[in-house]
Amino acid sequence: MKELSACHVTVVGLGLMGASLAAALNGRCAEVSGIARRSETVEEAVRRGVIRRGATDPEVLLPGADIVVLATPVRTILHQIGRYGSLLADGALLIDLGSTKREILEAMERLPAGVEPLGGHPMCGKEESGLAAADSDLYRGCTFILCPLERTSAEALELGKSLARAAGGRPMVLDAERQDHLAATLSHLPYLLACALVRTADALTSSDPAAWKIVAGGYRDTSRVAGCDVRMMLDILTTNRCEVLGAASACRDRLDELVDLLAKGDDDALASVLATCRAERWRMFP
Amino acid sequence: MKELSACHVTVVGLGLMGASLAAALNGRCAEVSGIARRSETVEEAVRRGVIRRGATDPEVLLPGADIVVLATPVRTILHQIGRYGSLLADGALLIDLGSTKREILEAMERLPAGVEPLGGHPMCGKEESGLAAADSDLYRGCTFILCPLERTSAEALELGKSLARAAGGRPMVLDAERQDHLAATLSHLPYLLACALVRTADALTSSDPAAWKIVAGGYRDTSRVAGCDVRMMLDILTTNRCEVLGAASACRDRLDELVDLLAKGDDDALASVLATCRAERWRMFP
Repeated sequence: MKELSACHVTVVGLGLMGASLAAALNGRCAEVSGIARRSETVEEAVRRGVIRRGATDPEVLLPGADIVVLATPVRTILHQIGRYGSLLADGALLIDLGSTKREILEAMERLPAGVEPLGGHPMCGKEESGLAAADSDLYRGCTFILCPLERTSAEALELGKSLARAAGGRPMVLDAERQDHLAATLSHLPYLLACALVRTADALTSSDPAAWKIVAGGYRDTSRVAGCDVRMMLDILTTNRCEVLGAASACRDRLDELVDLLAKGDDDALASVLATCRAERWRMFP
Repeated sequence: MKELSACHVTVVGLGLMGASLAAALNGRCAEVSGIARRSETVEEAVRRGVIRRGATDPEVLLPGADIVVLATPVRTILHQIGRYGSLLADGALLIDLGSTKREILEAMERLPAGVEPLGGHPMCGKEESGLAAADSDLYRGCTFILCPLERTSAEALELGKSLARAAGGRPMVLDAERQDHLAATLSHLPYLLACALVRTADALTSSDPAAWKIVAGGYRDTSRVAGCDVRMMLDILTTNRCEVLGAASACRDRLDELVDLLAKGDDDALASVLATCRAERWRMFP
């Protein structure tokens, strides 16, 4: 297998994640090219220097790529894995950036034998989406989860790690079930809570013009991820449905418990639970 | 009534909010003094230049103050209003910084006739607490809610506005019921959600060491306010109990609705609700 610096890398999908990765890899590989649905996006990515060349037709670029990165919403990734297998060169590494991994790894299992598949999930992002929001520093310092399949060779995994490091991330190998379980609570649940908060504010306060003036940092931060791209989040929720439902149910129980203590006026017990939360939050982010 | 620049201002409570206000007012009033429970805090505040002089005994400073600012947790403010009334000079302005206003205004109603009471709630803060976290820029640009009582004179309200502006804030007059209703949804509910999230993560993921490595910006921001001072938050929740319970119940219904759509697999309806949330979030914070 080639070193990363000798590889032709093709990124499929030039939104926030794909374009930021392409920009970060620029100069660290033989070539970074890109594929997008719309030719305007491809042209814009070339103009911004994010990719050297691009195409809307996968048949133009995929056969010559040493590494193909799928940077599209999860359900699009699932379709692309099915369609692109026959276009890939023998020995090519196919990696994705989807936020859920179980269904993607199942689809990768069915790729032609010559393809080296590797699941990926960089733990970074922001609520802006699209090429215009791309940032070559987006991956800097982030944990970049890698989920190898049984069929993935040690060399292919090493190449995946090199790619994660070249983008500025810290590779971490994790199995798909564990990753989906953890991501449900640490990433997908916060999104549902943020959406529930925004809907509540919309229902209870949006008729009062003063609401816009008094909204402060607490609301802004707690609701931030509700601004994320809907298609991306819908694909994540629906391909991690069971885990997300489990996390949401657990969270509802805990919210109910806090609310019950407040309703009953058991302020000492409430204080003690809140103190535990505070200590735990500071332990996670000292 | 004197101009702010000629006023002796005494801040009671030298934690984050009080010390930051004192630091911001320094040089804009005749003198800024401070009262804290512990003499170490008073000495430290003087050493940091936050106040010119201080005391642990309210009787030393309150009789000479033109403006007294209560910057303690809400239930402490309620006690202090009852105890300090007789110590205040005739015509003195008594303002507080508590996050809930209804109970505080009821207590202020019972102050001696010569005192000018004014409820205040600056919409700023951070999860660090205490004098060491004080920042003279904390109030810069924040909406500073002012809740006058019927007995509050127009001059006293103007002086309160001058104080808010001198600290860098933007004064906004609001009645106490409206403020408590809005703050329940826009400030106190986010805190409960953040705590529920932290408890869920603690229960579902803390046994897996990988959890600490993959936690990303979404969780960090959504859980941020769970790190706030517990005593402060407990006082807020318990003095705005009904409004907070109403907001929490509305939020629970909205979370249930999202969860039900996900559980049923009604992905189109889910997508449409999520798109509304996203648009609303971007409308609030363009």
